[in-house]
Amino acid sequence: MGLSLITYDVAMARWEPNARERLERAALALFAENGYDATTVAQIADRAGLTKSTFFRHFADKREVLFGGQEVLTEAFTRAIGDAPPSATAADCLTAALEAVEVVFTPQRHEFALQRRDVIAAHSELQERELLKMARLGLATADALRARGTDDITARLAAELGMLAFSTAFSRWATPGNEEPFSPIAHAALRELQDRAALLGATTGAQV
Amino acid sequence: MGLSLITYDVAMARWEPNARERLERAALALFAENGYDATTVAQIADRAGLTKSTFFRHFADKREVLFGGQEVLTEAFTRAIGDAPPSATAADCLTAALEAVEVVFTPQRHEFALQRRDVIAAHSELQERELLKMARLGLATADALRARGTDDITARLAAELGMLAFSTAFSRWATPGNEEPFSPIAHAALRELQDRAALLGATTGAQV
Repeated sequence: MGLSLITYDVAMARWEPNARERLERAALALFAENGYDATTVAQIADRAGLTKSTFFRHFADKREVLFGGQEVLTEAFTRAIGDAPPSATAADCLTAALEAVEVVFTPQRHEFALQRRDVIAAHSELQERELLKMARLGLATADALRARGTDDITARLAAELGMLAFSTAFSRWATPGNEEPFSPIAHAALRELQDRAALLGATTGAQV
Repeated sequence: MGLSLITYDVAMARWEPNARERLERAALALFAENGYDATTVAQIADRAGLTKSTFFRHFADKREVLFGGQEVLTEAFTRAIGDAPPSATAADCLTAALEAVEVVFTPQRHEFALQRRDVIAAHSELQERELLKMARLGLATADALRARGTDDITARLAAELGMLAFSTAFSRWATPGNEEPFSPIAHAALRELQDRAALLGATTGAQV
């Protein structure tokens, strides 16, 4: 009986249309209006017209509204690298990884990405969290390359190059008014970084 | 009167021979014996034969025993890059930066570095702090390169390449039994990374 009540509750929750998106929208609006620290989960649920328990079915806490995409990104990056054909170079793997995240950076997500960036820029603890998120994504990318047999030094450098291509592409894509999709922007950023890598590699330091 | 007492106290504190080194040694020994979390500042001061107030003259808290070197590293990196001749390439600047930190990684610091690494490896919060430290050092390095007129993309890629050369060199230098100085190890690591950069740059991904 207790169990069937819970089952009923979960089943009802699944009927809330776009609960996750509504909660995200409400959270971002409140973060912008009142600041991140002053916003509570109760306020977010209230603004979205949902309950606190619905919030907690989608997010562990309010920070996860901003950083819940980490697993999706990591999964997309590492799966694309793992699925690349055996003949793919490290650079080919980065291209595949960047293409794989286009599913996240859809036109519908553009406004969310812009708002999220502003919230993080205004808060040093969230900036720290963002730096860590990128560092961890880089470590996972290097692991995925090593798992294909890429040597350790190449894997680590390629992962950093991939992170820079990703963050450069993201900030271009998230520019207000941009309508170009993520993939061509990412390809161009990766190509620019590869050109700089070739120059840095070719230049022998005076003392080396 | 109160002021002169304070002055006296500070003057006396300056007479403690090698207080900072003694505190570091005591802290690292206690972290290894009892774990980082279980170790208190009082225990560290006691083990070093010093007072808590002497501890707090050298470190803000026990975490700073492990991470107090951040400013020294950042200062050494950014100053070396700023002081490099105008004709220096970004790769030359990295060489200069890596040479500048040899003052930190002396043979006397070898044991400390090894112990520090083990403490951090055993503690996820400290690992996070270490990731952040490297991310911040990378941002400062990119800033120093941009301040010389290096374009943004090159500055960011060179900074990441420098961080990888630094961490690769550090882990080779800190290997038990290693007696080679830091600089030649760092030169070799930088050269390896530049070679990989050239390869990554030359390889055009199939989709690009």
